[in-house]
Amino acid sequence: MADTLPLEETDRLIASDKVEGTRVYDRNGNKLGSIMNFMVDKRSGRAEYAVMEFGGILGIGNEYYPIPWQMLDYDPQQEGYVVDITKEKLEKAPHYREQSPLFDRAYGQSVYGYYGFGYPVI
Amino acid sequence: MADTLPLEETDRLIASDKVEGTRVYDRNGNKLGSIMNFMVDKRSGRAEYAVMEFGGILGIGNEYYPIPWQMLDYDPQQEGYVVDITKEKLEKAPHYREQSPLFDRAYGQSVYGYYGFGYPVI
Repeated sequence: MADTLPLEETDRLIASDKVEGTRVYDRNGNKLGSIMNFMVDKRSGRAEYAVMEFGGILGIGNEYYPIPWQMLDYDPQQEGYVVDITKEKLEKAPHYREQSPLFDRAYGQSVYGYYGFGYPVI
Repeated sequence: MADTLPLEETDRLIASDKVEGTRVYDRNGNKLGSIMNFMVDKRSGRAEYAVMEFGGILGIGNEYYPIPWQMLDYDPQQEGYVVDITKEKLEKAPHYREQSPLFDRAYGQSVYGYYGFGYPVI
């Protein structure tokens, strides 16, 4: 599956800048937000959180919801990620506004645990 | 280490869009190129290649050099990555121009092997 540049995707791999900005939907096709960026472990190179943003205008008043990377499931038809999160579930999920979290182990456990995953991922 | 938004980095994590565009130097401080993006395994979330670009003007004639993620070593003083690659080593390294590679297993082995790493990384 050779491609012309810039290479965005293969069956198995995706380019980091292709992920950023991608819309996120729930299982019913409702838009939940879009991916701002994702947080990568510098040493291991493992993507730990995808940071979903929504709300606000021009970035003002935006809210940020870190979710475990493995929750992202790309749907070519919607050209976006589908995640198994309802709006109700999301409303009570760990998030932040102006002050970002430490992203330490305790935070990781709270985020991953909220969505039913173990932390860290292997 | 709480930070104001957008969160770019903690001791352990870095934001994907902070990596992109970062300059890359050899051990002697010579600029080798800059990071265009990096390729992530969709399922595991592991960053597999950082794609370094250089040459060309406005992207025309650019050459792309995928390197194993773990070669990246950030130097705050230079505000860039330092990699243990000489210009001579880089000249003969796997790279591409207009046609991107398949990024399959054989390609991964050739890239990782060239720099002395096993593929895939654990």
